[in-house]
Amino acid sequence: MQGQAQQQAYDRGITIFSPDGRLYQVEYAREAVKRGSASIGVRTEGGVVLAVDKHTRSPLMERTSVEKLHKSDDHIGIASAGHVADARQLIDFARRQSQINRLRYGEPIGVETLTKEVTDHIQQYTQVGGARPFGVALIIGGIEDGEPRLYETDPSGTPYEWKALAVGADRGEIQDYLETNYSEGMDLDGGIDLALSALGAVNDDQLSPTGVGLATVDVETEQFRMLDDDEVEGYLDELDILEDEDGDEQEE
Amino acid sequence: MQGQAQQQAYDRGITIFSPDGRLYQVEYAREAVKRGSASIGVRTEGGVVLAVDKHTRSPLMERTSVEKLHKSDDHIGIASAGHVADARQLIDFARRQSQINRLRYGEPIGVETLTKEVTDHIQQYTQVGGARPFGVALIIGGIEDGEPRLYETDPSGTPYEWKALAVGADRGEIQDYLETNYSEGMDLDGGIDLALSALGAVNDDQLSPTGVGLATVDVETEQFRMLDDDEVEGYLDELDILEDEDGDEQEE
Amino acid sequence: MQGQAQQQAYDRGITIFSPDGRLYQVEYAREAVKRGSASIGVRTEGGVVLAVDKHTRSPLMERTSVEKLHKSDDHIGIASAGHVADARQLIDFARRQSQINRLRYGEPIGVETLTKEVTDHIQQYTQVGGARPFGVALIIGGIEDGEPRLYETDPSGTPYEWKALAVGADRGEIQDYLETNYSEGMDLDGGIDLALSALGAVNDDQLSPTGVGLATVDVETEQFRMLDDDEVEGYLDELDILEDEDGDEQEE
Amino acid sequence: MQGQAQQQAYDRGITIFSPDGRLYQVEYAREAVKRGSASIGVRTEGGVVLAVDKHTRSPLMERTSVEKLHKSDDHIGIASAGHVADARQLIDFARRQSQINRLRYGEPIGVETLTKEVTDHIQQYTQVGGARPFGVALIIGGIEDGEPRLYETDPSGTPYEWKALAVGADRGEIQDYLETNYSEGMDLDGGIDLALSALGAVNDDQLSPTGVGLATVDVETEQFRMLDDDEVEGYLDELDILEDEDGDEQEE
Amino acid sequence: MQGQAQQQAYDRGITIFSPDGRLYQVEYAREAVKRGSASIGVRTEGGVVLAVDKHTRSPLMERTSVEKLHKSDDHIGIASAGHVADARQLIDFARRQSQINRLRYGEPIGVETLTKEVTDHIQQYTQVGGARPFGVALIIGGIEDGEPRLYETDPSGTPYEWKALAVGADRGEIQDYLETNYSEGMDLDGGIDLALSALGAVNDDQLSPTGVGLATVDVETEQFRMLDDDEVEGYLDELDILEDEDGDEQEE
Amino acid sequence: MQGQAQQQAYDRGITIFSPDGRLYQVEYAREAVKRGSASIGVRTEGGVVLAVDKHTRSPLMERTSVEKLHKSDDHIGIASAGHVADARQLIDFARRQSQINRLRYGEPIGVETLTKEVTDHIQQYTQVGGARPFGVALIIGGIEDGEPRLYETDPSGTPYEWKALAVGADRGEIQDYLETNYSEGMDLDGGIDLALSALGAVNDDQLSPTGVGLATVDVETEQFRMLDDDEVEGYLDELDILEDEDGDEQEE
Amino acid sequence: MQGQAQQQAYDRGITIFSPDGRLYQVEYAREAVKRGSASIGVRTEGGVVLAVDKHTRSPLMERTSVEKLHKSDDHIGIASAGHVADARQLIDFARRQSQINRLRYGEPIGVETLTKEVTDHIQQYTQVGGARPFGVALIIGGIEDGEPRLYETDPSGTPYEWKALAVGADRGEIQDYLETNYSEGMDLDGGIDLALSALGAVNDDQLSPTGVGLATVDVETEQFRMLDDDEVEGYLDELDILEDEDGDEQEE
Repeated sequence: MQGQAQQQAYDRGITIFSPDGRLYQVEYAREAVKRGSASIGVRTEGGVVLAVDKHTRSPLMERTSVEKLHKSDDHIGIASAGHVADARQLIDFARRQSQINRLRYGEPIGVETLTKEVTDHIQQYTQVGGARPFGVALIIGGIEDGEPRLYETDPSGTPYEWKALAVGADRGEIQDYLETNYSEGMDLDGGIDLALSALGAVNDDQLSPTGVGLATVDVETEQFRMLDDDEVEGYLDELDILEDEDGDEQEE
Repeated sequence: MQGQAQQQAYDRGITIFSPDGRLYQVEYAREAVKRGSASIGVRTEGGVVLAVDKHTRSPLMERTSVEKLHKSDDHIGIASAGHVADARQLIDFARRQSQINRLRYGEPIGVETLTKEVTDHIQQYTQVGGARPFGVALIIGGIEDGEPRLYETDPSGTPYEWKALAVGADRGEIQDYLETNYSEGMDLDGGIDLALSALGAVNDDQLSPTGVGLATVDVETEQFRMLDDDEVEGYLDELDILEDEDGDEQEE
Repeated sequence: MQGQAQQQAYDRGITIFSPDGRLYQVEYAREAVKRGSASIGVRTEGGVVLAVDKHTRSPLMERTSVEKLHKSDDHIGIASAGHVADARQLIDFARRQSQINRLRYGEPIGVETLTKEVTDHIQQYTQVGGARPFGVALIIGGIEDGEPRLYETDPSGTPYEWKALAVGADRGEIQDYLETNYSEGMDLDGGIDLALSALGAVNDDQLSPTGVGLATVDVETEQFRMLDDDEVEGYLDELDILEDEDGDEQEE
Repeated sequence: MQGQAQQQAYDRGITIFSPDGRLYQVEYAREAVKRGSASIGVRTEGGVVLAVDKHTRSPLMERTSVEKLHKSDDHIGIASAGHVADARQLIDFARRQSQINRLRYGEPIGVETLTKEVTDHIQQYTQVGGARPFGVALIIGGIEDGEPRLYETDPSGTPYEWKALAVGADRGEIQDYLETNYSEGMDLDGGIDLALSALGAVNDDQLSPTGVGLATVDVETEQFRMLDDDEVEGYLDELDILEDEDGDEQEE
Repeated sequence: MQGQAQQQAYDRGITIFSPDGRLYQVEYAREAVKRGSASIGVRTEGGVVLAVDKHTRSPLMERTSVEKLHKSDDHIGIASAGHVADARQLIDFARRQSQINRLRYGEPIGVETLTKEVTDHIQQYTQVGGARPFGVALIIGGIEDGEPRLYETDPSGTPYEWKALAVGADRGEIQDYLETNYSEGMDLDGGIDLALSALGAVNDDQLSPTGVGLATVDVETEQFRMLDDDEVEGYLDELDILEDEDGDEQEE
Repeated sequence: MQGQAQQQAYDRGITIFSPDGRLYQVEYAREAVKRGSASIGVRTEGGVVLAVDKHTRSPLMERTSVEKLHKSDDHIGIASAGHVADARQLIDFARRQSQINRLRYGEPIGVETLTKEVTDHIQQYTQVGGARPFGVALIIGGIEDGEPRLYETDPSGTPYEWKALAVGADRGEIQDYLETNYSEGMDLDGGIDLALSALGAVNDDQLSPTGVGLATVDVETEQFRMLDDDEVEGYLDELDILEDEDGDEQEE
Repeated sequence: MQGQAQQQAYDRGITIFSPDGRLYQVEYAREAVKRGSASIGVRTEGGVVLAVDKHTRSPLMERTSVEKLHKSDDHIGIASAGHVADARQLIDFARRQSQINRLRYGEPIGVETLTKEVTDHIQQYTQVGGARPFGVALIIGGIEDGEPRLYETDPSGTPYEWKALAVGADRGEIQDYLETNYSEGMDLDGGIDLALSALGAVNDDQLSPTGVGLATVDVETEQFRMLDDDEVEGYLDELDILEDEDGDEQEE
């Protein structure tokens, strides 16, 4: 409804409100998230699943250095999408908060508590001048009091809790897939299948084990675990979305 | 009376006065409040009622993570409307002030005192440069000296006391409904009925228990209490505004 | 004498001088004062009278929360007009200065001293960058050395002493009324009559007790006293300007 | 010699040089001085005379609150013209410097020393960013080592010593009058006559005792003394410039 | 997709997001990297190889002062491309972090740890206002736990791990060469051959030993070693890309 | 060579380089120097001479308050030209440095040392943001190790040593006069004659003793000495450039 | 390749990158260097030679005050070109670093160490906001471990080591001359001849001993030594580039 010239007036310098009450710098940071490849989180009764698209831009780049899956604490994993350097800052912040909680209270930090400390940190960068917002969205998943929990942080600093969600490129399409195919009673394996097939759905059902990152935190061990390529290949094969191995480039 | 080009000159960067004595950034922050879904507060002889519209944008999002109803202290609840991440900051501020009051004076903070500490905090962000105003309005309700009290904070940092009020989307329409239907002698149940039917009035008299949040602070227990879905469903059913359960999306 | 385009150049960002030696941000803050409803102060031999227009924008809003009359110390009251949240900051500042004076010197602060501490505080916001001026005018009245004193603070930070004055909406018209009808020998009751009839003059001689706030500091008790609705109604009735009770909305 | 568009480029934000070496913000602050009513200082062998135009904008405003004549120390008076709130800051600064001098050195501050401390303070506001210049000129008069001294401070922070001078509105006309009529051997009464008749010259030779402020510091007592209305009326009557008492308004 | 006028709006002052979620200042810093001459890193089973183009702009300039190869610690070397003065700052930062690690933990810093401390430092300059990003890319290579590791830092502050990479001028062409010719089982000599022939490929297969810098960190000694001109000449001769010695200028 | 529009781009706000490597704010500060009346310094074997044009803008202004000749220490005098309030700051700075030198080292400060401390101070205001340059040039003259020394400081913060120089209005013309008429073997009287006749040359050979300031530091006494009007009149009379006494105004 | 309007966008305020990765303020500072008269450095086996063009703008200006040759420590000399006041700051910085090194480590600072401390200092002014770059280039020459060393610092903060170089006006032409005529085996006298004849080459082979500054640091004494006019005249005479003594003006 706003003309382009008028919009330009409200989206520069520091984060301020536009006449219709929007924060353009925050909305542009959301665009930075969309420029990153997709990340998916699924909560099941058996634990949480994090799956990420980790294509590399060159066959000589180490896939492990495409940092989209992170261990925040023994019982909490984080998947990110968007501006990679910004994600690293938030991951570091999350890890520090996790450590501080253990030192201060002698117990692991709650997933919700951690999420809200992260979003408070993000919000500061959208209200106080002299800095830009973080151009990244996080999916924070883990076990709290024996229950799997799955959260999202967005560039405005709002926390959301989800059963299953996608952030980054093709969010809309993947989220639709998740909404159609999610079922309440899934076990962890079902969650992995859902996450991978959702990722396959926007990749012509052709996924390479090296182009996918997969991690879980299950309710029994309460341990973050990164799955290796063979395990991933097994799942892809079973789902019949295993591609004929060619590490093509993709903008991360 | 001011042309658009001229208006543009006064609504950027820091919050300054326009030639006709207005603070545009504050007015735009009010627009951010209107972009949030509605929240309602009703004061009765038996206590205060807080009711919020909490539709989620996806069936996979946990309704509990749509944070619009908050416990600030045992005897005070807060409902918010507007920019969610900003609301979280003010809620945290309110909770800290509540705790400090208990530590310092050994007694619960007054509802009016708390409200004014919050509005002083908000005002600073409208006068001193380097930050933007808070894009959120709060309804603060609780019991003080045995009496129910109900306050509003707006983005300018002005506190108002109300018998019943609405903030957020459709404020005008809901407020009209409240003015028409409010009666001084209502008990707590009457307040709940008024709040829910006001919310129903702008939703084609079709409300889902999962799309509504409801909380009370009654004068007997002086305890903030969040009502569960079954209780909400009972009220909606009785008011004949219970919808045929379909969690449709709505911009929160 | 200055064209509009040129004027625009001097009224933004920080408060600086225009080529003809004016401070536009201060002048715009005066416009913010005019946007507030009227407040009146009258000094008589028997004490000072403060009267304010306190219409509410909704019948459900508590009139007591329309903060325009404030007790600064036992012997000093303040009426405000303009940006409400700014007024609250100055009132708080005045109260702190009053307390500090009692703590430091063991005696109540003088009305003139208090006024000048407030205006010094206001002036800083007009000269040093990084903040906007206060959009509010105060009427500070009280007893000092047994004598009634009545002061005004304006957004430039200038203190004025008055026999009778009005600030806010309709200032010009009310001030004319006061100049015509003020008499030196008035007692406190005469002052109340003058203040109320001046307020009535710009309201079609129709005032509701609930739409008017009235307070006095008399020379005998040297105590700030807020009059209740019945007392106000008595005065209005006697002056024949009591309206037929309908709490219509008015922009405060 | 500079076109208007080009001039605009150098007179905003902070105080910087224009291509022809001028400081526009300082020049505009001088315009703020001219917007204030006139103040006059005259140095005679018997002491210094300060006379100010103090018309009020309403008959209900207390003339004593039109602050244009100030006692800085027992032996030093200050008359101001221009932005009143700024003048108050400089007067306070001068008083503090006077007190500090007595505390530190056990003796009254010299008139020249005081003047230069004030002008150093003023200069800072013209060179360092983040603030605007002071929009006020002061006439500082007093006795130093038994000799009457009379100084001016201008908005650039330059001190000047004078035998007789005017600042504020009609400065040019009054200064001409002073230059024509000043004589070296005048006594204090002669100085008073000169100051009042100079002020009369720009007011159609019609001055009201209530519209004039008059103060002296004589060489015998070395005490600042404010003359009362009767004394002023006596002088005006004798000079045949006493108006027929009507407190007409004038922009102060 | 964005027009030029619109792009201009987002690429100045501090680093902020453009409407499509890009950080233009970071992208321009990447252009500064491309303006620097090429640097190459190759990881082999026997260690890491760093090779740089170090043509000088005058035969009188000492080649050793063209700082593109740096020892960060005994076991870690760094090659840079881009703005030389910025590179020096990051190298100093890396050396300090290396020393701190030895002091604090009594052991050499890990290559990955060092890389991430450097990228965190870089990221700060892209988010917080008051400074510009670093216009430089680094290749950090060394031995960690007996294994060769090779990392890149880019101006956004993102760390990448590589088997072989190029930064600076002709990056695209050299990277293609590396991808085509890299083989997993190479020994250190093979890595040197690959790096030098890749550099030769964009220099008409004509390289001067004085125009090339070459260093290694091998897995046996775990020591950074800079090769001298004779050694370089030997390799070039063997590869048949030794030019007929003429120190022609080239923009570094 | 630069067009006017382009020039405008580099001469505002803080001091930055223009594309041809100039600092416009410094150049404009030099214009401020030219707007001040002339000051002259002459070094002779017998000591240094400082002569200044000190016409006043009104016959009622005290000539002594036209501050252009200053004693910095017993053995050093300073003449200034340009923005008077700025000059005062630098003079104060010079005096403090002189005192500090005596306190710290127990001996008078060297003329060169003092000059360089002043120019370092000036330079800071041309490089670091948040302030404007000083709009003043100083001539610093005195005796150091028995030798007369004469220095200039300009608004860029560069120190120059001179045999004879002029700053301020008509600098070019006076400097030409000095170059033509300076002779190495002059004694102090010869220096005074040269300075006064140079000043006369740009004033139609008509100088009033009250319009000229004259001071010396001779090598015998090593004392700064201000000459009185009679002495000045004697020199002017002898040089046949004594005007027929009329204190005409001149812009200082 | 960039149009002029676009270029303007990136060269103001603080130092930021242009779309093609350039820092315009640094490039403009290089222009400021070119506006200064030439300075030359030559490294020989016998030591380093520094030669500078030091024409004065008036015959009355003392040549010694044209500061282009500086002693930084006993064994290190510095020649500068560009903005004189900026050069003084860097020279002072270099001297302080030299002293600190002696105090801290009890030994003279290395030439390379000193150079890099200076360039780190310079770089800060090109990356962090609130200041402009230094508009000066330095030639730093001295003896380190018995070896002559010769460095350049440029406005970007990059250090370069040279055998012989020129900075300032006519850099290109002089550098060509140096490249053509430099020979590795030169002794100190040969270096002096080369420096002076290079300077002569751009001055029609006409140099005045008073217009040239010459200094050496030889490997035997390791002492910085400024040559006097007679010595310089001897060299010029021998080289047949001694002009017929006329101190013509030249922009320094």
